Amino acid sequence: MTLKIYLSGEIHTDWRELIIDGAQEHDVSFNSPVTDHAASDDCGVAILGTEPDKFWHDNKGARLNAIRTRRGIEDADVVVVRFGDKYKQWNAAFDAGYAAALGKSLIVLHGAEHQHPLKEVDAAALAVAETPQQVVEILRYVLTGKLPG
Amino acid sequence: MTLKIYLSGEIHTDWRELIIDGAQEHDVSFNSPVTDHAASDDCGVAILGTEPDKFWHDNKGARLNAIRTRRGIEDADVVVVRFGDKYKQWNAAFDAGYAAALGKSLIVLHGAEHQHPLKEVDAAALAVAETPQQVVEILRYVLTGKLPG
Amino acid sequence: MTLKIYLSGEIHTDWRELIIDGAQEHDVSFNSPVTDHAASDDCGVAILGTEPDKFWHDNKGARLNAIRTRRGIEDADVVVVRFGDKYKQWNAAFDAGYAAALGKSLIVLHGAEHQHPLKEVDAAALAVAETPQQVVEILRYVLTGKLPG
Amino acid sequence: MTLKIYLSGEIHTDWRELIIDGAQEHDVSFNSPVTDHAASDDCGVAILGTEPDKFWHDNKGARLNAIRTRRGIEDADVVVVRFGDKYKQWNAAFDAGYAAALGKSLIVLHGAEHQHPLKEVDAAALAVAETPQQVVEILRYVLTGKLPG
Amino acid sequence: MTLKIYLSGEIHTDWRELIIDGAQEHDVSFNSPVTDHAASDDCGVAILGTEPDKFWHDNKGARLNAIRTRRGIEDADVVVVRFGDKYKQWNAAFDAGYAAALGKSLIVLHGAEHQHPLKEVDAAALAVAETPQQVVEILRYVLTGKLPG
Amino acid sequence: MTLKIYLSGEIHTDWRELIIDGAQEHDVSFNSPVTDHAASDDCGVAILGTEPDKFWHDNKGARLNAIRTRRGIEDADVVVVRFGDKYKQWNAAFDAGYAAALGKSLIVLHGAEHQHPLKEVDAAALAVAETPQQVVEILRYVLTGKLPG
Amino acid sequence: MTLKIYLSGEIHTDWRELIIDGAQEHDVSFNSPVTDHAASDDCGVAILGTEPDKFWHDNKGARLNAIRTRRGIEDADVVVVRFGDKYKQWNAAFDAGYAAALGKSLIVLHGAEHQHPLKEVDAAALAVAETPQQVVEILRYVLTGKLPG
Amino acid sequence: MTLKIYLSGEIHTDWRELIIDGAQEHDVSFNSPVTDHAASDDCGVAILGTEPDKFWHDNKGARLNAIRTRRGIEDADVVVVRFGDKYKQWNAAFDAGYAAALGKSLIVLHGAEHQHPLKEVDAAALAVAETPQQVVEILRYVLTGKLPG
Repeated sequence: MTLKIYLSGEIHTDWRELIIDGAQEHDVSFNSPVTDHAASDDCGVAILGTEPDKFWHDNKGARLNAIRTRRGIEDADVVVVRFGDKYKQWNAAFDAGYAAALGKSLIVLHGAEHQHPLKEVDAAALAVAETPQQVVEILRYVLTGKLPG
Repeated sequence: MTLKIYLSGEIHTDWRELIIDGAQEHDVSFNSPVTDHAASDDCGVAILGTEPDKFWHDNKGARLNAIRTRRGIEDADVVVVRFGDKYKQWNAAFDAGYAAALGKSLIVLHGAEHQHPLKEVDAAALAVAETPQQVVEILRYVLTGKLPG
Repeated sequence: MTLKIYLSGEIHTDWRELIIDGAQEHDVSFNSPVTDHAASDDCGVAILGTEPDKFWHDNKGARLNAIRTRRGIEDADVVVVRFGDKYKQWNAAFDAGYAAALGKSLIVLHGAEHQHPLKEVDAAALAVAETPQQVVEILRYVLTGKLPG
Repeated sequence: MTLKIYLSGEIHTDWRELIIDGAQEHDVSFNSPVTDHAASDDCGVAILGTEPDKFWHDNKGARLNAIRTRRGIEDADVVVVRFGDKYKQWNAAFDAGYAAALGKSLIVLHGAEHQHPLKEVDAAALAVAETPQQVVEILRYVLTGKLPG
Repeated sequence: MTLKIYLSGEIHTDWRELIIDGAQEHDVSFNSPVTDHAASDDCGVAILGTEPDKFWHDNKGARLNAIRTRRGIEDADVVVVRFGDKYKQWNAAFDAGYAAALGKSLIVLHGAEHQHPLKEVDAAALAVAETPQQVVEILRYVLTGKLPG
Repeated sequence: MTLKIYLSGEIHTDWRELIIDGAQEHDVSFNSPVTDHAASDDCGVAILGTEPDKFWHDNKGARLNAIRTRRGIEDADVVVVRFGDKYKQWNAAFDAGYAAALGKSLIVLHGAEHQHPLKEVDAAALAVAETPQQVVEILRYVLTGKLPG
Repeated sequence: MTLKIYLSGEIHTDWRELIIDGAQEHDVSFNSPVTDHAASDDCGVAILGTEPDKFWHDNKGARLNAIRTRRGIEDADVVVVRFGDKYKQWNAAFDAGYAAALGKSLIVLHGAEHQHPLKEVDAAALAVAETPQQVVEILRYVLTGKLPG
Repeated sequence: MTLKIYLSGEIHTDWRELIIDGAQEHDVSFNSPVTDHAASDDCGVAILGTEPDKFWHDNKGARLNAIRTRRGIEDADVVVVRFGDKYKQWNAAFDAGYAAALGKSLIVLHGAEHQHPLKEVDAAALAVAETPQQVVEILRYVLTGKLPG
């Protein structure tokens, strides 16, 4: 069995690298959104022309990012959504809802401090993890049947 | 033409009433989540038995609420998602993603202060409104072709 | 909001009546399989001709029952599956899997003694209840937002 | 033609090995659930933390197993479901229903003693076999057009 | 429970009337193709202009008939396909395949003389009947649980 | 049988009225886009605020119109697309493609002068008519089996 | 561009070989039903045990063949259905309907003598050919844009 | 991440080559319609026999082209639709609608002079570009996260 994983959400810590490195011996492939925050914000106007209005500046960029995001989610077997400490992260929750509606296996990754406001997202998930290492162990178990330790 | 509308998101202001009242002469029907915050939080344990662990307390409740939420979104022609001033509102963004993946017409309702963090959600919408009155005018226009004023 | 409910599973106790009676003031409709055990077993040969081989006797009947069962599940918003004390009840678990794959909201109803062998079925459910009264309370809450007591 | 097969159900006899070995000269690939009973029961708490309540202990594990099971069934051309002599095996019947709803070609494998209670599952199948060797012969015939003997 | 039935196939005997009359006390609705053979053959050119080439004469008509046929099949819960004594009846077999691919409950109605050449069609059906009265009894059983006699 | 019809395309002649009037004795319902050209162009800015850039002026309006158009097409059994003498009419061809991809029965209505450039659109249709009266006759035939004259 | 082709229908002439040989320089792959008539008729009882009743003899075999047929059609980009001179060929028309309902590109191959009774099947096709060579030329054109001669 | 791109629309300038050349270092694959105008017009009659009526001449050809076009769009992750200076280009708008209904990521490429009549098409797109180079930059950004310059 091979698994295609999409890593959605927080882009300011190394959680993606920890999961990718931890799972490198397994038969998995990973996709992610563009994680360069500035490029992600400005891609629309950088390619398609400036906009004086911030709404359209952001709209143009968010639409370009959607080309990558939707393909990544639609192609995935498993969608991991990480909620971190900063920002509103509504795009992460949006991706989780998008993945849930498509019937993707959803793993949510967040600290205990976000438990209550994420209860609807967690309720749609097949696993709620607190650390990237747990996600690695889930992937290893799903692929090989081996438990940690 | 008749339209079925699902009103998702913020539950602490009267935006739903404003839309429902404003659209009452038109051929529309509305569904919403349970908007009684305490009932929504505690429904799982109140019906299915207490849980000592807050995670499962919330999980049981969020799953019951999902019975209503999913049916409401899946049955709707148009999903309006309101982001207000308080709370994380990840459930609202989750609903928006869920609706988008099902190809529902999405209207997002929020103030200018949330524009940047909502850019991915707005980019999936057919309209981004700032006031409930604008949503009423959209519904009136879609149903009758009449513009305001 | 109105809800269409399919009541699958055990046919030897009055759990269906308890739910239907308990929910009668709400905007719900119910469908069920044929609950006359003898008719359900023999319908195929009674209508389409006898079979000397028990396998085909059963096969003919099970196919006729599938006309009703599939339509009932596919048309439902919520599928309630009851596991009782007798028989193998593989048809109930089959219905639960069928409903889950279609994305139906699943409520499983069983006693504590079946908890472990039903864990995969329960894991696909939005609620796991022990009594018909709890199912009634779930339906009331989903439809009206009112909690018991 | 190549076929992707998912082997669901009983995990205490060597029926999977017999089928995989018997079909090894053909253009088939196989997926299965985790067949280590203890790992399958305990994976949730082993990875995501202990639960004092047996229900949640099982629920956490069953959800992790669902990541593998659903991907296996959704990816398969043919789903073989084996019912053996022990345990309730409701998960096997659940998988059969799940596969049937997705329109997968279903082969059910069981002894004559389970014929009557499996009649609804058998009625959804394209073949009902009694031995792993028959499943091998079905796969060979489907892939090559060759009959046994 | 209510059932929507599409009656496809042979148009030269009164089998449709027998089924509709026999089921009139039940909660069913029926759709059928246009059963006026001449109108069905010539509708295309009668409405859209003559064609010197028989192929296009037929093609224009068959496309108009497809508007009715496809809507009838897609809207149905149960598709009954009748094979009679005359003509090639490839359109009946086409409708059966179309219905099967959409997951409709299929009932095939034919005499014993057509058993072997219809084996693939019968294999996709939930019931194979020989008389219209049997179809009536199936509908009655599916709707009420009552067996004949 | 009842039919739901969506009337897409040209908004400057009375073809819709001719069809609706001609079909009024039949069991049909009709939906259409907003046919007030000025309202259709300006709805976005009239409701959601002015835009200095014509692209966004048009984009806001086209998105609002899409709420109505998509619901109309998705809900229809038959989509009639009219190409007239003026304008580019790319929105009409877009609607035709949208309807075709959803498997809707497509009727294209245009004069002989547009035959060659519409060949791909016509090739996706079940009927190509030159006059509204022919569309009326198609609907009458599909619903009643009666030919003209 | 690569194309996956399923070759359905008549099994007593060399039309499949002519198409496969003719297209061998192109980027195509082919699947077909089992074309050994005797094996196709008897596979069910040969593998799963004899049946005294011809109906079940045929039913068992037709279901096994359906494993191959459905996978072949569902996996194909293009389904070619050949109607020859002998037998009822209802299975060919069934496959054509099945393919049409799945939105597959359908090519029908038959002689002029079958034109009228195949009009509904032809009306669902993107091409109606009379010779295998024409099918080869269609495939070549679709893949390379080159016309014959 | 790899992307499959379908390049629809105008066939008289070198925009396809500019995009394909510009993106050659990236992990993309491209499909297109047949861009030989004469072959595209005459393929139907060249392969399947002449037609005296121009409508059927065109119809036969457009249906053959649809085999390629539909497969190309259905297989794509991203559909780029180019509107140029000549011809009606209704087929391009049809492809855009077809792609939109399937949920494909749509990029529209056209000059400012077509902005107003393309507003409905643009409103369904994730990007509206004016030059092939912008499309190349979009693809590069989506695949690598790198902005131009």
